[in-house]
Amino acid sequence: MAEKIALVGTGVIGRSWGIVFARAGYDVAYFDAADGVVAHALGEVDKSLADLERAEMIDGAAALRARMHPASSLEEALDGVIYVQESVKEEVSIKHAVFSAMVAVAPDDAVLASSCSAIPPSKFLEVPTPHRCLIAHPINPPHLVPCVELVPSPWTDDAAMDRADEILSGAGQSSIRLTREVEGFVVNRLQAAVMTEAVSLFARGIVSAEDIDKSMRDGLGLRWSFMGPLETMDLNADAGFASYVEMYGKAITDMGQDLRVAEPWDEDVIKRIDSERRKLVPAESHAERRAWRDRRLIALARHKDSEDAG
Amino acid sequence: MAEKIALVGTGVIGRSWGIVFARAGYDVAYFDAADGVVAHALGEVDKSLADLERAEMIDGAAALRARMHPASSLEEALDGVIYVQESVKEEVSIKHAVFSAMVAVAPDDAVLASSCSAIPPSKFLEVPTPHRCLIAHPINPPHLVPCVELVPSPWTDDAAMDRADEILSGAGQSSIRLTREVEGFVVNRLQAAVMTEAVSLFARGIVSAEDIDKSMRDGLGLRWSFMGPLETMDLNADAGFASYVEMYGKAITDMGQDLRVAEPWDEDVIKRIDSERRKLVPAESHAERRAWRDRRLIALARHKDSEDAG
Repeated sequence: MAEKIALVGTGVIGRSWGIVFARAGYDVAYFDAADGVVAHALGEVDKSLADLERAEMIDGAAALRARMHPASSLEEALDGVIYVQESVKEEVSIKHAVFSAMVAVAPDDAVLASSCSAIPPSKFLEVPTPHRCLIAHPINPPHLVPCVELVPSPWTDDAAMDRADEILSGAGQSSIRLTREVEGFVVNRLQAAVMTEAVSLFARGIVSAEDIDKSMRDGLGLRWSFMGPLETMDLNADAGFASYVEMYGKAITDMGQDLRVAEPWDEDVIKRIDSERRKLVPAESHAERRAWRDRRLIALARHKDSEDAG
Repeated sequence: MAEKIALVGTGVIGRSWGIVFARAGYDVAYFDAADGVVAHALGEVDKSLADLERAEMIDGAAALRARMHPASSLEEALDGVIYVQESVKEEVSIKHAVFSAMVAVAPDDAVLASSCSAIPPSKFLEVPTPHRCLIAHPINPPHLVPCVELVPSPWTDDAAMDRADEILSGAGQSSIRLTREVEGFVVNRLQAAVMTEAVSLFARGIVSAEDIDKSMRDGLGLRWSFMGPLETMDLNADAGFASYVEMYGKAITDMGQDLRVAEPWDEDVIKRIDSERRKLVPAESHAERRAWRDRRLIALARHKDSEDAG
């Protein structure tokens, strides 16, 4: 019999996690405290599975869907699970209450992870048996962007980090292990570095919003979609990373000192970027463009799978 | 008869530019002041063209190669050109001397661009007819990464910026227009933001080098390979950019203030990253990994072409 994983909170993030786990062969319980949310989630999952099947990224949406089960109580959802992925609202008091309730009913050896993106784990994971609670922060949607950050609270033990890593890596996710909590974790810090410098370059009148995006999607983003910034540096010098830094390190750290990532964002600047965006993608085409983004993510995931395999 | 473009300096960057221009139908003159460099460059170009032909990204390497001609003097190279792409050594005095020589022999209406990546254009473009001189900074290699930054010196006129944009965009490059010079231009500033924060996260012992790279190649880099950071924000909220900033702007700018992009790099930290890299890719496999990177770039370019077309 397949091992069981529970989702607690089945909004956009939770329901996508369900695809990750069912795809890996787990039985997946869907639980949400709010009425009707699970039914809606499973309806949306059906659409996503159809997209994946069309893209030939899964065989048999039906078999996968058959592993997903709505649960009508937290107790029912967590009965017999090896792992729980919580994805409720991002609010300290709510997360703390949900974790308190979950540890009370989860099997003793189950690991409990939160999809939390911005609250430090120490703020809500001080609950009974805190050693087995941690953050497993995905990038949305986890079934298409296979990156998850494992962030321990001060009370999380290594065994729980290892177990979460084993389950998530086994399900095809690429896990990033932090040794301790830090504001924004890793992914959002790197993203914020780009966002804040980008907004500052626009605010200073140096470059348009469209050209900032071009510099990423036609430039930096190409390499970064299959290797990270450190490997990029490492491969840019025949003798590797240290030799690259010997040549370019001073220029890069000088630039680092010149960056304006700490500047506040002016409301007028935000309005001007928004208005430039609406010229590129009018309000009435916005939903269509989001659908385009999702299709491109699927196509890229398929491209990467085939390159990694080949 | 095809219009003519000259390359001055035919090292790694210059010879790749030649592929961009020949692919677009131009006759391309290869000139390098150092003995034997052009012959070597054309030999390397043959290898690149074979790779592109194998990947079905060009039809007819031979036809393309037939448009490339070695030139034995600067005068011969620049005779009758509409555009010059300079890619000599990154040193102020050399760049200034080369531009002084080029403007003396180039046709009056030719635009002259430098591949310069780090020197502000005001430092070397104060030459006769400076209105037609500018920086066109590529990402290496330009024939695979179609992003070019156009940076005016204080003397560059709009007509020259427009003309360079027209020629480069017409040759399939995605041009980013800066309104004035700024340290590092746009691409390298955004790259430095990521590199410096990444090194700081490693230095603080928060995450491994490999996991930093995973956070990009399995996370952020996916979206960024087909849309930029501003479009990503715009599409992450149903009502667009301003609404996204209303929800997450404070968290992002708070994070911006917490970033450590201005920190110096400790020699020991660089050594430890290097040593982690060598465990992942041993020195004897480094060249092979660089070849892998180039194959992946070609495969991604082909993937993007097909997605953009489809």
